Amino acid sequence: MNYGIVIKVLGKILSLEALLMLPSLLIAVYYGQSDVLAFIKCIILIGVVGYLMTKVKCKNNKINGKEGLAIVTFGWILASFFGSLPYVFSGSIPSLVGAFFETVSGFTTTGSTVLTDIEIIPKGILFWRSFTIWLGGMGILVFGVAVLPSIGASGFQIFKAESPGPIKDRIVPKIKETAKILYTTYSIITATLMILLLIGGMPLYDSINHAFSTIGTGGFSIKNLSIGAYNSSYIHIIISIFMILSGINFSLYYALYKGKWRDVLKNSELKFYLGLVFTTVVLISINLLITSYDNISIALRDSFFQISAIITTTGFSTVDFDQWPTFSKAILFLLMFVGGCAGSTAGGMKNIRIVALLKLVKRQIVKTFHPRAMIPVKIDGRAISSDTTAGITSFFVLYIGIFVVGTIIISLEGFDFMSSASAVATALGNVGPGFGVIGPMFNFSVFSDFSIFLLSILMLLGRLELFTIIALFAPSKWKNEV
Amino acid sequence: MNYGIVIKVLGKILSLEALLMLPSLLIAVYYGQSDVLAFIKCIILIGVVGYLMTKVKCKNNKINGKEGLAIVTFGWILASFFGSLPYVFSGSIPSLVGAFFETVSGFTTTGSTVLTDIEIIPKGILFWRSFTIWLGGMGILVFGVAVLPSIGASGFQIFKAESPGPIKDRIVPKIKETAKILYTTYSIITATLMILLLIGGMPLYDSINHAFSTIGTGGFSIKNLSIGAYNSSYIHIIISIFMILSGINFSLYYALYKGKWRDVLKNSELKFYLGLVFTTVVLISINLLITSYDNISIALRDSFFQISAIITTTGFSTVDFDQWPTFSKAILFLLMFVGGCAGSTAGGMKNIRIVALLKLVKRQIVKTFHPRAMIPVKIDGRAISSDTTAGITSFFVLYIGIFVVGTIIISLEGFDFMSSASAVATALGNVGPGFGVIGPMFNFSVFSDFSIFLLSILMLLGRLELFTIIALFAPSKWKNEV
Repeated sequence: MNYGIVIKVLGKILSLEALLMLPSLLIAVYYGQSDVLAFIKCIILIGVVGYLMTKVKCKNNKINGKEGLAIVTFGWILASFFGSLPYVFSGSIPSLVGAFFETVSGFTTTGSTVLTDIEIIPKGILFWRSFTIWLGGMGILVFGVAVLPSIGASGFQIFKAESPGPIKDRIVPKIKETAKILYTTYSIITATLMILLLIGGMPLYDSINHAFSTIGTGGFSIKNLSIGAYNSSYIHIIISIFMILSGINFSLYYALYKGKWRDVLKNSELKFYLGLVFTTVVLISINLLITSYDNISIALRDSFFQISAIITTTGFSTVDFDQWPTFSKAILFLLMFVGGCAGSTAGGMKNIRIVALLKLVKRQIVKTFHPRAMIPVKIDGRAISSDTTAGITSFFVLYIGIFVVGTIIISLEGFDFMSSASAVATALGNVGPGFGVIGPMFNFSVFSDFSIFLLSILMLLGRLELFTIIALFAPSKWKNEV
Repeated sequence: MNYGIVIKVLGKILSLEALLMLPSLLIAVYYGQSDVLAFIKCIILIGVVGYLMTKVKCKNNKINGKEGLAIVTFGWILASFFGSLPYVFSGSIPSLVGAFFETVSGFTTTGSTVLTDIEIIPKGILFWRSFTIWLGGMGILVFGVAVLPSIGASGFQIFKAESPGPIKDRIVPKIKETAKILYTTYSIITATLMILLLIGGMPLYDSINHAFSTIGTGGFSIKNLSIGAYNSSYIHIIISIFMILSGINFSLYYALYKGKWRDVLKNSELKFYLGLVFTTVVLISINLLITSYDNISIALRDSFFQISAIITTTGFSTVDFDQWPTFSKAILFLLMFVGGCAGSTAGGMKNIRIVALLKLVKRQIVKTFHPRAMIPVKIDGRAISSDTTAGITSFFVLYIGIFVVGTIIISLEGFDFMSSASAVATALGNVGPGFGVIGPMFNFSVFSDFSIFLLSILMLLGRLELFTIIALFAPSKWKNEV
């Protein structure tokens, strides 16, 4: 491993993080609240550490697979550690473990919080909190690839390790260009939502924060009641739609921009994703109407909002869905695992993997009759390689395995099974709230520091799609076992 | 498809079933209870139907893959349907859906019951109930292969479709011999347990029933309190040990008999299975000692019993484990999915599949560093083919998929999530009791006929390892899609 280049790039990322705290500082100054000093301290500290790290000597600038994994893993850990300092320095979250959880929750676009009263937190801190979601959504390091001059050329390994989904495609041949296109699209969609929220009567500060939180599919709100605090069907529906849009592969927006309508319409992941949203909205609406709702349009509005919030792993809430009937809750729980599309800002396993897994099962059924036939698995008309299918099935097994082991460990807290299982599912899928003691009306402050730290690791594992981190920490004898 | 031979073989199976009801009739006569007439009616009815079916003409006696699937699937459905008639005719379970559930639960060695008071049921019926477990454990049709003269030669397709596990090996080249060896081993182990229970002071009738139920890993008891009704550590421990023994691949007993000690000791599935039992016994015992138990040996005894009962999918209980802390319950819930070893009478996914899946994940981690390396997956020193790994991963995906969809449907009953999820897990894994409303102190009579029927199907799917049944009912265009 070329440690020099790893430390150098990490230094650049930290310097960038210090710069990215400036808007929060400005907001703190504007509102004249107690968090001004915290941001000044953080910016100086992180800036100096970052600068010193960039001065490390290195033999060459080559970033290969191993360096890519190390940069991404440690980049996320360091950015989260230093990103948690504003919470600690301002006294908003005095415990470092809690502040680390909150920052990881932001960067991984999970949106779970340890804050018991969000509305007393200074505005600069809340802005930083929402901004971490926006930065993490498309990738902190992809952002670095897009804006930093010297990473660009060898940034593909970083891009590969950080972007979600089983198949890593560049939109255009140059990785720096790809990163720029992604961030431009991302910014345009975010700005559009912000304007639409303003039109709906949401204050400017609230609109900016919720636009970051929605398009990054994170789900931090600046209100204790989340989006439920805004008593406006317009706002609920606009945010639902933009959550769904943020769960779509961003390269499809570029395809639309280039006029490739057919590619978009034929995309099987998109069809599956929208089909799943439609089906579950219908099922949950009927279930709600039979059990507790008496108005069809409100049932549709609430179920559409909550399904969008969960499948895109945003995690906003407008109602306490933990009070919904078991059937509706079971569907929401399932959607936490599915998540959005590859190449979106959403978490979970990604729809493309579910599509591939269903096709693998179908092939196996066909094989019962033709045991010796060679049947390729095709997605969007293209056969996927056996390496890719092995990657997808291993991902699925590992995801379920980590979920199960995580649930068993978290259940040591002594809460009921649903609370324990949903805490792990929501962390791993980067969703946000769960059921029971961590339902939409509660927060994660009920857990011990040990569990809070474990859940932080699970959020990172989920966001970096398991193998990036696990491979880095695998026993070194495995690496030579070929 | 050669329908003639399918019907003919099914007819033989039914005739055999009529014969197999004779011992129950004798017991009914001996005790002089109200179930005598019910058995006489059933034996005549099933015998006549079976005889008529054997008289169907068929072109030839060839049983290929398709015929094998059809014989096994319909064999199980018909045997369960006709096997449920004694319950209906005797009035023990007046509802046909409930009686079908009880019989499927027996043949699939699940052991879930709809009976609210077991101890008022006539002794002949209870014997038939335990006997269905024993017959289903090693395979109703494998039994047919072993004893019926004309199926023998072409029985491999039946054997393949009915025996559990991803790799189907004959113990000896001739399938009829294999079936005989399996049933001989099975009978010897059952008789041994019966004698040991007698020595422990259990009455003869109870010993026979519990020996069937233990070695078949079914878990029907003739007592409302299950094995908890016998206040004897000796009985608890003996049954625990025999449950564990029944969860081991029966071909290993033949290997032992042939003196192949090394093969047995090196068997990686056996090591994993015993390791898992040991680890979970230690973990649950500690958890129990910290929370509610104050005696180490009782904690060890109860956790060993309950873990053996769940991992081997027997489903007996000596305590109300639904009252145990969440950590212990989460581990038991996980074990419902793991199940026993391939080629045993236990259900679940089987340990060999878990071992293979873990190896696939490990390979994928190694591949992060060597993306183009060809790394075979080895079990017991032998590389397993990519067809086998595809079969195992598809099985896992389908198992989880059916569990998820099943849970969503069952949750329409309106019970809590844990009750719904464990009802499906316990049916699919052929375990027996679950948690919540179907905990060890309750029964399945709380469910509607629709759910009872759905759970019956899930038990059959689990016992025949999903693909046998699903392939048979797959859209016919899939079958030609090669």
